Amino acid sequence: MTSNHTTSRPIGIFDSGIGGLTVAKALVAHLPKENIIYFGDTAHMPYGDKSTAAIQAYAVKIAQMLLQQECKLILIACYSATAAAYELVKEYIGNRAIVVNVVDPVVHLLKGNYAAKRIGLIGTRQTVNSNIFKRKVDSLKLDINLSAYSTNLLASAIEEFGNHLVIDSLLDVYLAHPSLQEIDALILACTHYPIIKERILLHYQQSQQKTIDIIDSSDIVAQTVKMQLDENLLLNDQGTSNKHFYVSDYTDSFARNAKLFFGETIHLEHYPLWD
Amino acid sequence: MTSNHTTSRPIGIFDSGIGGLTVAKALVAHLPKENIIYFGDTAHMPYGDKSTAAIQAYAVKIAQMLLQQECKLILIACYSATAAAYELVKEYIGNRAIVVNVVDPVVHLLKGNYAAKRIGLIGTRQTVNSNIFKRKVDSLKLDINLSAYSTNLLASAIEEFGNHLVIDSLLDVYLAHPSLQEIDALILACTHYPIIKERILLHYQQSQQKTIDIIDSSDIVAQTVKMQLDENLLLNDQGTSNKHFYVSDYTDSFARNAKLFFGETIHLEHYPLWD
Repeated sequence: MTSNHTTSRPIGIFDSGIGGLTVAKALVAHLPKENIIYFGDTAHMPYGDKSTAAIQAYAVKIAQMLLQQECKLILIACYSATAAAYELVKEYIGNRAIVVNVVDPVVHLLKGNYAAKRIGLIGTRQTVNSNIFKRKVDSLKLDINLSAYSTNLLASAIEEFGNHLVIDSLLDVYLAHPSLQEIDALILACTHYPIIKERILLHYQQSQQKTIDIIDSSDIVAQTVKMQLDENLLLNDQGTSNKHFYVSDYTDSFARNAKLFFGETIHLEHYPLWD
Repeated sequence: MTSNHTTSRPIGIFDSGIGGLTVAKALVAHLPKENIIYFGDTAHMPYGDKSTAAIQAYAVKIAQMLLQQECKLILIACYSATAAAYELVKEYIGNRAIVVNVVDPVVHLLKGNYAAKRIGLIGTRQTVNSNIFKRKVDSLKLDINLSAYSTNLLASAIEEFGNHLVIDSLLDVYLAHPSLQEIDALILACTHYPIIKERILLHYQQSQQKTIDIIDSSDIVAQTVKMQLDENLLLNDQGTSNKHFYVSDYTDSFARNAKLFFGETIHLEHYPLWD
């Protein structure tokens, strides 16, 4: 896949903001020895409100920066960016690095485990309107009834309140939508949602009187990254791991929230990619 | 103030997004014959989460564009931008146009009507942390007890749900903060908040058992603009009004929401200021 087989080359991860740190956290759990460069495009967050053309321009520039840092694998840890720009980024990167997104690993899981089931999906407006999951499910002719609904405010609400009671009011409004009733599983198609996983489970226990599967991609994606590195003989299993966390605009609230998403305190650095 | 006294020159208004359309609406009501150019920097919205340096860079570039359009007056219809960049924009513009912001007219009103009163203020984190109202109130030695609290998610919630019941849950969490108790008036320091004015009034009627004054700046600011144009012999009172509404990134949801803020359907045009 790549010409440079130095296994110490870092894994590059990018997201529209710091939500992708939930994916970075899962990655570190599965691959503790890997060097990691995280880039959060906080100058343009949230991508959920941006046009496809704008997200494509941002994603290519970020991918270019990660290539300059010699990343061996680039993980698009953002559903809006995957929907708008995965094909473009993959084309742009060519064989210079492996490219992984947060959608394909989940579709692969559906294929094996959810035939004939009714699946709900929640995400930002951009992710939902892109129809990216539905298109992939249909192109693989999977016998799955997938209904997606945009829960646009949830990500910002989680940034503002964390896992707070007020989130339940938003869930009551959003999850009451007809397309999300009588489902067997719910895909959390936004990197922020794992933080409120238990509230969503509880909501469905109360409204449907049963436990549904919550499909949280971060773990699934981390496993896919490990497998892809292994297949390409690029796994790093020695030395100490270096981690850099960059944001394109720096504020104290990003620094505070980073802990919420990564689970531990990290040092956020300002990387002026757009200045 | 300005060298070019052609009264048909437009009024330029800018905001981080389309919330400033509530101010544009008040302006049109007070000045129906004026030509108007509105610029919403939707590529970077919301400013509430951006750093001061980033907002300053955006504001100067927008002001430059409005000057190129020969605006006679530039209205910064955004609290975050006023807090971060008003002094800089005023310096940059010099005597080429009048510059008005959304804070000074309100402080002027406080001076005349709220001596010895306890006033609350809600706005984005950026507006509140800037302490801009407090600093102005203090520098004028006004005998006013002002407490500001950041209600960061309200603007996005209004964009998402409009004037919906779920907003009450957010108000219950936010307005329960100790700094917003036992107040005589509440300043709505965000252009989105006039849309939920009645809910805020009702909240205080229930929690404080009395009616408080809600200080909505859009009307106050429109009056200030009229007065400033009048003093500078720049009022336009003949011909038909031309209005242009530009956004730096275009999505259908901006187009839909424009009606919510402006009160009637308008034609939003994409202006690629950052491409």
